[in-house]
Amino acid sequence: MNHLSSAISIVSANDPDTSIYQFESSVEEKTIALSSDLCHQPGGLKSLALKANIKYPDVLDFAVVALNQPGTAAGVFTRNRSASPAVKIDRKNLENGISQALVVLSKNANVFTPTAYKDGVEIVESVGKALNINPSNVLLSCTGVIGVPLPMNNVRKAISRITENMQNGLIDNVSEAIMTTDKSPKVASVKFGDAVISGMAKGAGMIEPNMATMLVYFFTNLDIDKKLLKSTIKRVCDSTFNSISVDTDTSTSDSVIIYSTNEVEATKSYLEDFEKALGAIALKLSRDIIYQSEGATKLVEVTVKRGRTEEHAKQVAKLIVNSPLVKTAIFGADPNWGRIVMAMGKPLGSDESTFDPEKISIAIAGMKMFDCGQLVSVDLAQLSSVIKDSKHVDIVIELGEGDDQWTVWGCDLSYKYVEINAEYTT
Amino acid sequence: MNHLSSAISIVSANDPDTSIYQFESSVEEKTIALSSDLCHQPGGLKSLALKANIKYPDVLDFAVVALNQPGTAAGVFTRNRSASPAVKIDRKNLENGISQALVVLSKNANVFTPTAYKDGVEIVESVGKALNINPSNVLLSCTGVIGVPLPMNNVRKAISRITENMQNGLIDNVSEAIMTTDKSPKVASVKFGDAVISGMAKGAGMIEPNMATMLVYFFTNLDIDKKLLKSTIKRVCDSTFNSISVDTDTSTSDSVIIYSTNEVEATKSYLEDFEKALGAIALKLSRDIIYQSEGATKLVEVTVKRGRTEEHAKQVAKLIVNSPLVKTAIFGADPNWGRIVMAMGKPLGSDESTFDPEKISIAIAGMKMFDCGQLVSVDLAQLSSVIKDSKHVDIVIELGEGDDQWTVWGCDLSYKYVEINAEYTT
Repeated sequence: MNHLSSAISIVSANDPDTSIYQFESSVEEKTIALSSDLCHQPGGLKSLALKANIKYPDVLDFAVVALNQPGTAAGVFTRNRSASPAVKIDRKNLENGISQALVVLSKNANVFTPTAYKDGVEIVESVGKALNINPSNVLLSCTGVIGVPLPMNNVRKAISRITENMQNGLIDNVSEAIMTTDKSPKVASVKFGDAVISGMAKGAGMIEPNMATMLVYFFTNLDIDKKLLKSTIKRVCDSTFNSISVDTDTSTSDSVIIYSTNEVEATKSYLEDFEKALGAIALKLSRDIIYQSEGATKLVEVTVKRGRTEEHAKQVAKLIVNSPLVKTAIFGADPNWGRIVMAMGKPLGSDESTFDPEKISIAIAGMKMFDCGQLVSVDLAQLSSVIKDSKHVDIVIELGEGDDQWTVWGCDLSYKYVEINAEYTT
Repeated sequence: MNHLSSAISIVSANDPDTSIYQFESSVEEKTIALSSDLCHQPGGLKSLALKANIKYPDVLDFAVVALNQPGTAAGVFTRNRSASPAVKIDRKNLENGISQALVVLSKNANVFTPTAYKDGVEIVESVGKALNINPSNVLLSCTGVIGVPLPMNNVRKAISRITENMQNGLIDNVSEAIMTTDKSPKVASVKFGDAVISGMAKGAGMIEPNMATMLVYFFTNLDIDKKLLKSTIKRVCDSTFNSISVDTDTSTSDSVIIYSTNEVEATKSYLEDFEKALGAIALKLSRDIIYQSEGATKLVEVTVKRGRTEEHAKQVAKLIVNSPLVKTAIFGADPNWGRIVMAMGKPLGSDESTFDPEKISIAIAGMKMFDCGQLVSVDLAQLSSVIKDSKHVDIVIELGEGDDQWTVWGCDLSYKYVEINAEYTT
């Protein structure tokens, strides 16, 4: 978070169960809080969620969302160089900034199989046909295991059931059907004046900042210019989804997509609110992903202050939040700030500068441990017990090199992460 | 490994207990195998190992090695930007390519304490005085916890005991005194003609390729030109120590240093053997570090073939060997090659190229699973059982983009790694 952070506040930030995300609305001239459900939705949406038997017989694994007519749309996608056929199709279909429908298959990524691209194209075409929508206005996401061919007969059966099963509105089951190892659905929505934004996300592992992450869908009714929609979603992603990390691994299917039904005119004050509201939902969904991520017992928030540039602060913050030794120390409630010193110094490309201890300060859970070359005497046992009892651990570093700052979010590294990912899955 | 790999062979490579590392010697015109001890040593070395009570009262934690007279020397050091004062001192003291003594303190890294640099300088000066050696010819390494001041009174007491305790030769206890969380000392030596090389290493965590890693010391009697010594040690490091990874974390103290007593004239055939012999010892010590690394149950060897350049092959190999999801899959004996596809595609700076499945093949433990766009039918239960029973798992990728290849070594990610590093240490 950077410029957005001052516009969004979190009440009870340390407890994900009671946190409230809010912002000052220009449209309503008051503070508006997010809802943790999909109660605010654009009109003219239809959706469904089905059990298609993609990997398991009795779970929701197939979802469709459709707008009554084509609307403005934009997306941010994975930078993984083994990107999925779905991501390739979506990039192409979003070139004109227009879309009308979304189909999501979970439990299979449809990547690196002999027929992956062909199957992706067939799904988009058949879903378009079933909904009477031009296939170039249909987007596809697939998420799950890589390298296993899709059971296309089961997928075709699910597609044949679309027409009779579409329901009015964005139903809750869609957010469940897109899950893989997620503990629970992640949704949020907000209303300011006549404008609404609904958002949902899935993601629990293979998550690394600095690129679009996971599957995230937003729906709004605000009629925003295509170019502005694209630049706004990118900017919001940089400060939220691109600033979280579970394990440095980058999914081949990551996509963040926003659709607009273009119903509400976007006046200046609406536009002002839009970025704040979208940022608040993105921030909430990002943090929910971390809280629920594979094996995590704590959210770790790392803020690097007084960096040379925002990019510099972000890079140093990511080195810290991604370090296995920092992550295991937090899991063990060990305020071992020496590991933070090591992590922040990890090589950064061609940056040959070294840190000057005299300029640096380091605080964990609000307690300063190192301050401009001096060790600060701290009750380590007490600090360890504070960390142990927290679901949220702050690490704040001051570099003393400039005036820019950045915040990133990650989690600890636990036995459970190893257990979940060592299970035999292929 | 690249050009060196063809010059070094490993007999029984899958079992670290019975592996033999060997090379064809030009000097002796026969195959020469390494010894897993320090039986081959240059003449004119003295050493000691003491219990200095740096962190614990009754363990070896202080070592000195000295040459009878100044010799050629070269080093490769950490690229961590929080580099330790010891590394800074060593870089400076090695500028002239000459050195005579080495002092190593373990269980404390002497990094980011208010007096770290001052303490480092004092140690080098006092040790020089005790040995009657110019302090600019003394190198220092410190390894252990960061941010805790050295108990300088204890260190001074140890230094006062140097003169009376120096023993002839490079004693085994030195390799024990430099350890931190290492399971056992790691040493090797070799003799070809009149030339010898002895090597020792410590390192178990905070280990990441693409930079000098850990503490490693070599001693030879071959009289090699300073410039050549420096370029050779760098080249050998690139193929061995810089191609291993335990956890992507980079120590602030990593150093690889070679000393020569300059006793044996370096004719052309000696020089030919030297790089092979040094490479073989470095390879053995690298692999020993991985086998004994924190929580590792398996060594993972990743070879990327047919890359665009050696650097390209190395980058892709490192993405795979460092991926937490690949590492946990190997720990769980899960031949989930889809995670390899994900890991190899992780963003590489500005490289925007994408992989073409039609050109790629992937093999695990000698079994091809994906071949140029096609899934290969494999008995997954059998492959899983092979992985489960191995201490060594090969992953071989062919990219089909060029003719260059690189091999890197890492380990799996186990519960034990989390346990070791979650323990309360500060």
